[in-house]
Amino acid sequence: MKFQINRSHLLEGVQDVMKAVSSRTTIPILTGIKMEVHSEGMVLTGSDNDISIERHIPIEEAGNVNIEVAQPGKIVLSARYFSDIVRKLPGETVEIEVGERFETTLRSGASEFNLIGLDPEEYPRLPQVEEKEVLMIQGDLLRQMIRQTVFAVSTTETRPILTGVNMKLEEGVLTFVSTDSHRLAKRIASIDNSTEGLAFQNVVIPGKSLNELSKIVEESSELVHIVVTNNQVLFKTKNTLFFSRLLDGNYPDTSKLVPSESKTTLVLSTKEFLQAIDRASLLAKEGKNNVVKLATIDETNIQISSNSPEVGKVFENVTTQSMQGEELKISFNAKYMIDALKAMDCSDIEIWFTGAMRPFLIRPTEGETVTQLIVPVRTY
Amino acid sequence: MKFQINRSHLLEGVQDVMKAVSSRTTIPILTGIKMEVHSEGMVLTGSDNDISIERHIPIEEAGNVNIEVAQPGKIVLSARYFSDIVRKLPGETVEIEVGERFETTLRSGASEFNLIGLDPEEYPRLPQVEEKEVLMIQGDLLRQMIRQTVFAVSTTETRPILTGVNMKLEEGVLTFVSTDSHRLAKRIASIDNSTEGLAFQNVVIPGKSLNELSKIVEESSELVHIVVTNNQVLFKTKNTLFFSRLLDGNYPDTSKLVPSESKTTLVLSTKEFLQAIDRASLLAKEGKNNVVKLATIDETNIQISSNSPEVGKVFENVTTQSMQGEELKISFNAKYMIDALKAMDCSDIEIWFTGAMRPFLIRPTEGETVTQLIVPVRTY
Repeated sequence: MKFQINRSHLLEGVQDVMKAVSSRTTIPILTGIKMEVHSEGMVLTGSDNDISIERHIPIEEAGNVNIEVAQPGKIVLSARYFSDIVRKLPGETVEIEVGERFETTLRSGASEFNLIGLDPEEYPRLPQVEEKEVLMIQGDLLRQMIRQTVFAVSTTETRPILTGVNMKLEEGVLTFVSTDSHRLAKRIASIDNSTEGLAFQNVVIPGKSLNELSKIVEESSELVHIVVTNNQVLFKTKNTLFFSRLLDGNYPDTSKLVPSESKTTLVLSTKEFLQAIDRASLLAKEGKNNVVKLATIDETNIQISSNSPEVGKVFENVTTQSMQGEELKISFNAKYMIDALKAMDCSDIEIWFTGAMRPFLIRPTEGETVTQLIVPVRTY
Repeated sequence: MKFQINRSHLLEGVQDVMKAVSSRTTIPILTGIKMEVHSEGMVLTGSDNDISIERHIPIEEAGNVNIEVAQPGKIVLSARYFSDIVRKLPGETVEIEVGERFETTLRSGASEFNLIGLDPEEYPRLPQVEEKEVLMIQGDLLRQMIRQTVFAVSTTETRPILTGVNMKLEEGVLTFVSTDSHRLAKRIASIDNSTEGLAFQNVVIPGKSLNELSKIVEESSELVHIVVTNNQVLFKTKNTLFFSRLLDGNYPDTSKLVPSESKTTLVLSTKEFLQAIDRASLLAKEGKNNVVKLATIDETNIQISSNSPEVGKVFENVTTQSMQGEELKISFNAKYMIDALKAMDCSDIEIWFTGAMRPFLIRPTEGETVTQLIVPVRTY
């Protein structure tokens, strides 16, 4: 193998596939990045078995030559060293040449690296996914749906299925749901561009995969193609294939958890409420549960409070835009509330309470695309 | 005590004195910040016994009222909570009121915190330093002198005196020297504004103190007053007093270590050389010593190389502006070289070698204010 490549394109590609490479893998070949060059361009691959990323760099793009191939071939190079080296090389281009025993020379400017490569035939093959039934979604919408739900996945392995986000498609409506059993986050969106009749229910994508995917999908309206198979999901953008394994098991039916009516309804400014909770949680962190209390005062005021015996107390008055229904005193985890409020993406929210011991619901005053549910804490 | 204060001024002051507060102190009162209000303004104090910082906020400044004092007094509040709270309070001003048993109320906007305060009489008194003999130096020059030397202090306690920077003043020349016995950094500067006849030699300031001082001194030409006593040094700016204890013991005489002649002299571009060393060190990190090799090739070229048996090799060609004297092969710690080059602040450097086993000297091609010395590693 011998070729010359534009260094900044190579760096971008390497940094993308690096997101799938884990330093803690038990499979030595997966500490490397696979690089394959053929007449059409270059393919970089990184994987930790759960996530695999394949990145294409075309020979030419918008009239500019990215790669000059003297001899096609493939090699696996240590991801850790390769990315550092490409980042720091001095020239605008890099010449890469691989010898018979995988010894690899990188030349750029007055710099030359000789790296010990690994046998590319040992690198595991990525899943073959046929693009028969495709769901298409704008990149920026996909990123938003991930951000609004992924924080609520479980971080413990008590119920492994809860470490993922449940993705459903029914009658043109895409739903992301996550819960760690103390709170739930749900986002829905109408999807126009999918294969007719396409539907799925029990697709559960690890939260970690979605976090990495978010870093790769661009904040643009360009369409991402999603293909679901038995045990894999593929997200495909212009130059990148992102594979994630799916979680085994049945995702619980969460629809019954969401209350359909309210006994106490508050309408609040998201920002003002968030800042008050944030301040109250300063003293709540000392304890184990980070608990703050909310009490209705009158039709236009609620009080947020917290108490840490060794440090002190805090009282926050928050103005409501409206308060309807029964008086209420309730306690909850401030962190869950902060996470939920940050994911609302709207200036005003509505909270539905159905009693001090029942989960309560947060949604935008306009539209019902985001729903957040929090289970209260027993203190009053 | 009762007063109202501009929140951003209070925050700035708290963040300054926080730099002296350690979370790992064994003296409970030192986890707090002392706050004293009198008719002239406010004094904030933080200390970890090694470093103490006193910050003044005047009642009025440039025609603006900073503080309205209803009743003078003093209190000690938990540094950790107080700084977080002040940062997040909603209003432009904060009202602070202290009760008889040190219970302290902070009010700002619709937010109220009740904190458990500590007895200010328990707070240790800061050293009293008389400003008889004063050395005056511009803030930006002081910061530069610290940055160019403090990185070379020893980080181990084998010889505690080497964990500090030796500050000397002789005949109007201020010298900062530091060494960890593997390398040495020295910076000199002419000082005009000191008390006539002032001189000192064995003043050794802990590196940690200077690092914190750097964050407080402004990058401006405003003069910092330095007063040295038996076991303390005071750095005084417009609103801040910064005290540091001095290290006990005699700082070694380092003047004999610096070679006065050269057998091989190189003139190099600082940036080009730094980048080559940085790349070569990518593979050198694997071993214990981070060692790279330098070999002269001809009058205009040197080679930097490094070798990590399991990863590979790197060769860097660096163009010299001139090479005089004997041929040379030498090995050294890449990190020491990178640290030294980053501290040079000049576009071209001169390196004086006196043999592969002798310390070598790096200095700017113009001026002799900065001297860096590195002890080579035996490998060739």
